[in-house]
Amino acid sequence: MTAFDELMAYQRQTEALAQIAGRLGWDQETVMPRGAAEQRAEELAAIESVLHARRTDPRIAEWLSHAEAPDEIGARALELIARSYHRNAAVPAELAAEIARATSRAQGIWAEARATEDVGHFLPILTRVIDLIRQKGQALAQAGFGAGDPYDALLDDYEPEATAATIGAMFDRMRPRLVALRERILSRPAPDVLTGHFPRETQLRMARTLAGAFGYDWDRGRLDLAVHPFSSGSGNDVRITTRVDESDPFNCFYSTIHEVGHAAYEQAIRQDFLLTPLGAGVSMGVHESQSRIYENQLARSAPFTGWLHGQMRAAFGDFGVDNADRFHAVVNAVRPGFIRTESDEVQYNLHIMMRFDLERDLIAGRLDPADLEEAWNARFLADFGQAVEKPSDGVLQDVHWSVGLFGYFPTYALGNVYAGCLHRALRADIPELDAALGRGEAHVATAWLAEKVQRHGGLYPPARLIRQVCGFDPDESPLLDYLEDKFGALYDL
Amino acid sequence: MTAFDELMAYQRQTEALAQIAGRLGWDQETVMPRGAAEQRAEELAAIESVLHARRTDPRIAEWLSHAEAPDEIGARALELIARSYHRNAAVPAELAAEIARATSRAQGIWAEARATEDVGHFLPILTRVIDLIRQKGQALAQAGFGAGDPYDALLDDYEPEATAATIGAMFDRMRPRLVALRERILSRPAPDVLTGHFPRETQLRMARTLAGAFGYDWDRGRLDLAVHPFSSGSGNDVRITTRVDESDPFNCFYSTIHEVGHAAYEQAIRQDFLLTPLGAGVSMGVHESQSRIYENQLARSAPFTGWLHGQMRAAFGDFGVDNADRFHAVVNAVRPGFIRTESDEVQYNLHIMMRFDLERDLIAGRLDPADLEEAWNARFLADFGQAVEKPSDGVLQDVHWSVGLFGYFPTYALGNVYAGCLHRALRADIPELDAALGRGEAHVATAWLAEKVQRHGGLYPPARLIRQVCGFDPDESPLLDYLEDKFGALYDL
Repeated sequence: MTAFDELMAYQRQTEALAQIAGRLGWDQETVMPRGAAEQRAEELAAIESVLHARRTDPRIAEWLSHAEAPDEIGARALELIARSYHRNAAVPAELAAEIARATSRAQGIWAEARATEDVGHFLPILTRVIDLIRQKGQALAQAGFGAGDPYDALLDDYEPEATAATIGAMFDRMRPRLVALRERILSRPAPDVLTGHFPRETQLRMARTLAGAFGYDWDRGRLDLAVHPFSSGSGNDVRITTRVDESDPFNCFYSTIHEVGHAAYEQAIRQDFLLTPLGAGVSMGVHESQSRIYENQLARSAPFTGWLHGQMRAAFGDFGVDNADRFHAVVNAVRPGFIRTESDEVQYNLHIMMRFDLERDLIAGRLDPADLEEAWNARFLADFGQAVEKPSDGVLQDVHWSVGLFGYFPTYALGNVYAGCLHRALRADIPELDAALGRGEAHVATAWLAEKVQRHGGLYPPARLIRQVCGFDPDESPLLDYLEDKFGALYDL
Repeated sequence: MTAFDELMAYQRQTEALAQIAGRLGWDQETVMPRGAAEQRAEELAAIESVLHARRTDPRIAEWLSHAEAPDEIGARALELIARSYHRNAAVPAELAAEIARATSRAQGIWAEARATEDVGHFLPILTRVIDLIRQKGQALAQAGFGAGDPYDALLDDYEPEATAATIGAMFDRMRPRLVALRERILSRPAPDVLTGHFPRETQLRMARTLAGAFGYDWDRGRLDLAVHPFSSGSGNDVRITTRVDESDPFNCFYSTIHEVGHAAYEQAIRQDFLLTPLGAGVSMGVHESQSRIYENQLARSAPFTGWLHGQMRAAFGDFGVDNADRFHAVVNAVRPGFIRTESDEVQYNLHIMMRFDLERDLIAGRLDPADLEEAWNARFLADFGQAVEKPSDGVLQDVHWSVGLFGYFPTYALGNVYAGCLHRALRADIPELDAALGRGEAHVATAWLAEKVQRHGGLYPPARLIRQVCGFDPDESPLLDYLEDKFGALYDL
């Protein structure tokens, strides 16, 4: 065997073990008995330890120094393995272990603090986590990641090649147009509200119909319930989860469609990439672009909601909205609110922007964690015109920072931006898309995305992939134009 | 850290990884999407390879040579680790890998052969598997296992300290009494047959009631459907499975209770044994004694079936058996049949005895695999008085040999023998047992078994454990006395 073949065989086993770790996570959130939690934590630690040892095995460096790639795909595989190896090797083992311990504790403390509205309870462990993640960022920067900038070095883990400078400049261009759009919308009458009861089993049946409409492959996946919906797995075992609120069916339906976007990406990746470094979505931003285009540009479009309205009338009877246009407005309602995950297409990115600025300041040491709540509330008042009255509506609403995810938030907004670009290209390529969506045939869009984006897995870096598909460099204008058109018509602006 | 502590920490991680491998097996048989099968095989191979490397790591020998156990529990842990290490080290890696490959293929070919009634299709791969298992037995025997006898060395994996000679002698004492009992029963009129339809959801509700009646801890387990029921996991995550036949509710109910017996054993093991070599049932025989005493001596007793009859009348209405005595006879019906897994308490051990004799001859090289079908059919005619007419009723009915399980079958009968002993001791200790069973309170027996047997996990070797609980050396008489009493009364012999 050549060094290349040996490395690939080794990597394949690592990828298989990583799939197993992911499957354990799925099990934990869906079917695991309550009493198994502690034992499961130890099992997860065991497999993570095996994975960490494999990913930092010095033989990788040895193989890399001798391996010759037979083709473009092999070269990209080597590049991704080298990247992962050098990132892992750059972080001292003791620091990595300490981050694992601290974030594991922090997550529980964050949940307690949020339940009791007690920022002070969370502050010591958050301060500790930030300190550790800063150390990690510095270690990565010293190894050359992020061109020597600690925040960029962290960001690089989730969105390779992105930098805070370009994202920040883009956000600065987006903010005024979004704030203006939001203000004009909120000056108009609010849309209708759903009334009625939407039984759980009927919602779940409809969720399955919706997943099928988007082309989700049931032969290689399944749908279960989870507190926080997620998708899980790569290749031929990609599972989705949803949740049910019997007074709000959109919660179930749109979180299902969102997860189908993630899952369809993984399911569509070329089979010869299975269990290789190319066998998963290329970045968090591109992943989110798939979930977002499914959820928003496609499933919240007038033709698709028209079809959905008919399906819901058949399944649930009268629910207070008897007209497809008014139904479209209800699905796309923009209302004042504090919570990122409940926000609409217009306000969502404003949430991301404030988190992005705050976490950059935390990592740079410009913002003391003790001042974070005050900074959050001041910024929220400035961007959203509302005073935060309790921490669960403010700084304690998201789990991300407790688990050490710094540099992750901006990929949500990047996903929206990419989705805007892809949507423009999709519309140009498939003029009959609206007619298909009006028949519930969203799989027409899935087929296009599968061919253009999804099947390539990790083969092309994010920006190159979008450029290749769209014919232009990714930027925010297609998204903003789309939002202004759509909500201008909806709110008669 | 001392060598003992280092070894225990290492072992703990191995045990955690082994639990993960088991959980993947559960996933595969219950919830895995169909299209994931190939990918899953590769994932399982990856974790098995990690486990094999850990179990044969030369550091174990090093630690063992320096480790000093602080107490009896530590000494037993060292003994079990040493046993496992030396067994794994005795089998050449290439032979172990070849067995894994061959049995993985053989299982599929066996299923095809059974479906097409084609022994010839199975014969080449079975011959190969037997050859490989013989080599394994010889390698183990050369390393001193089974006192130098290859079959005993294989048996030792499933039932430590047992030998074919003592089991064979015991079977020779059991056979005439069982054959005589069987003949007398079959000369009497056959009991009633259930009629009616037993809806799936009602059966599953009842299965949950039955598991609860036996004290199964739902907080540390769950019930799902599987083609072949099994239980899975140790400690605080022990899951059971069942199956449903809408014309035969006993299939679901008694397989559930059987698996609850296995699961209750694992759930009851001392928490300080969790993820140690002592944290699982001590042998296949003792495991089977728990599933068997739950299923047979307890759940097929007159008081328990009396209670069950009432529950079933309430759940299903009239099903053709309106009298508790006749219901007890139906539950314990002895009928001619070919299939081990469908057989009753009287005939079951006769099935085991013929497999035991045949597999000993195969491993010793006294029986050519090409002559196996003929030998099977001749022996079946002799012991059961019936001619086998198709291989799926005969030599192709069990999966065991295709997956390389030689030395496993006798543990089923040993389990029945141990159950007979434990049942005698249980009756002596708890005179009010029948009254409790008549109220469906089978958990009274679980509590006794948990305290006497289950909580000790791997601490005591099988025969010592039974002796310690019962006050006598395990032998077949309690089981045979019980069977003759019970079926004598039932069939008015």
